[in-house]
Amino acid sequence: MLYLVGLGLSDETDITVKGLEVVKKASRVYLEAYTSILLVDQPVLEAYYGRPVILADREMVESNSEEILRDAQTEDVAFLVVGDPFGATTHTDLVLRARELQIPVRTVPNASIMSGIGAAGLQLYNFGQTVSMVFFTDTWRPSSFYDRVKENRHIGLHTLVLLDIKVKEQSMENLMRGRKIFEPPRYMTVGQCAAQMLEVEEDRQEGVYGPDSLAIGAARVGGKEEKFVAGTLKELCEQDEVLGSPLHSLVLLGRRTHELEHDYVREFAVNKETWDKIWKDEYGKQH
Amino acid sequence: MLYLVGLGLSDETDITVKGLEVVKKASRVYLEAYTSILLVDQPVLEAYYGRPVILADREMVESNSEEILRDAQTEDVAFLVVGDPFGATTHTDLVLRARELQIPVRTVPNASIMSGIGAAGLQLYNFGQTVSMVFFTDTWRPSSFYDRVKENRHIGLHTLVLLDIKVKEQSMENLMRGRKIFEPPRYMTVGQCAAQMLEVEEDRQEGVYGPDSLAIGAARVGGKEEKFVAGTLKELCEQDEVLGSPLHSLVLLGRRTHELEHDYVREFAVNKETWDKIWKDEYGKQH
Repeated sequence: MLYLVGLGLSDETDITVKGLEVVKKASRVYLEAYTSILLVDQPVLEAYYGRPVILADREMVESNSEEILRDAQTEDVAFLVVGDPFGATTHTDLVLRARELQIPVRTVPNASIMSGIGAAGLQLYNFGQTVSMVFFTDTWRPSSFYDRVKENRHIGLHTLVLLDIKVKEQSMENLMRGRKIFEPPRYMTVGQCAAQMLEVEEDRQEGVYGPDSLAIGAARVGGKEEKFVAGTLKELCEQDEVLGSPLHSLVLLGRRTHELEHDYVREFAVNKETWDKIWKDEYGKQH
Repeated sequence: MLYLVGLGLSDETDITVKGLEVVKKASRVYLEAYTSILLVDQPVLEAYYGRPVILADREMVESNSEEILRDAQTEDVAFLVVGDPFGATTHTDLVLRARELQIPVRTVPNASIMSGIGAAGLQLYNFGQTVSMVFFTDTWRPSSFYDRVKENRHIGLHTLVLLDIKVKEQSMENLMRGRKIFEPPRYMTVGQCAAQMLEVEEDRQEGVYGPDSLAIGAARVGGKEEKFVAGTLKELCEQDEVLGSPLHSLVLLGRRTHELEHDYVREFAVNKETWDKIWKDEYGKQH
């Protein structure tokens, strides 16, 4: 059996009791370690589980899945995924390959950022499609997210923006020379995301949002040190110190809001007066 | 401290290790028992936790929250919610009242149907807003869901439809006579939902979807007996026996699909030929 086990969002104790039982009994335990991270490191997990954990990087999952699936027809293999196994990144491909090999698959669900973001106080019902924001470079500034935000905003929906993480990346030089030297991990902040969003609006000029659009910056959702900061996109460009360490996410508000959401989120506002004024003028008119 | 603890989707072992620690230590433990249910009953939870659990019905949560929040300034109170505390139903109001009383609040997230539905094989990125379907009566047939599905379909997004549950409901007669006699619980099935959707399309005639639109019926998501059936809305009207016992949910597909999703979901199709043909003609054209 291949078990896809969600680890939740924060630390080693966010695994479910059911998931922990699977981890303790499996023949081999892999940790998918390139699409998201927990706030604790591999040795903490290994101590907590009382057994070794094999790190599975992108190369292993995408090109060497036979090793992960080896003998899973008769043994139990646990594949651990931060968040929910089918959350922000699906592992559809691994399951399809397991099916081809007649390996039964079972999922142990857990919290995903796509539901955990509800703790920011906005109704999950009113979120549209989710988008991702990558680190822009001089030559690569993909703005397809903008079209999707536009669609969401057009019908009044909130947009969850998932922020890029760079783990085990090689510099172009090291890559070309075949040197397995990796850059330090980088995690996009809410400030970087807000700034990139404003840059793209500046380029595209379609008025999808602007410096005064309301948004919520979220850090370490689901953890003890969870932190939310609400404000305009312009204000959120400058709140990284308040938000603190990774992981960050951002929610751009849609117009379809409820008075309760206003009251709830106001608590997190950088500037409550600005928040109230813009909310009153631009949001919450559908109720 | 008020702890909002998610229980996940299926049985007593879906609680996180962190959540279980909270439950074991809290002064009082409430179980919110009217917006969703686990697949196990209260006595199973009490035996598992080794302590009594107080059932909190809608009346208690909405009108008697002082009792739930009593002394939570100095004691720990655990409020258990099926799924994620901020998933399908938010408990925003309870948190706002806790804030007024200077009670600190902490959330222990867990799987929600809004992320768990990813196990059906569709990318969560491409879901639009979520809608609810209530049991229609002769006089009450709300169709606001139709407008929201229309918005989602217009931009090619999938729609998760959450199905009505009726727990601790009184008949009109018993309600008017003030008799605390409750009807047996009712859980909407995928078949009932698909039929009601087709009725509304028949009334509204806006062509938002039709008998041949593709959808996925889901039962007991996240549980050992999890079951998915994919087919046209017309086909799904007749699949309740295959899907089995509650809880059910339904996903109406949007056009924005990926070949991997086709391959993954096809496994669940009532009729693979029909599935392939309609998919080819109507879906997956954006890639």
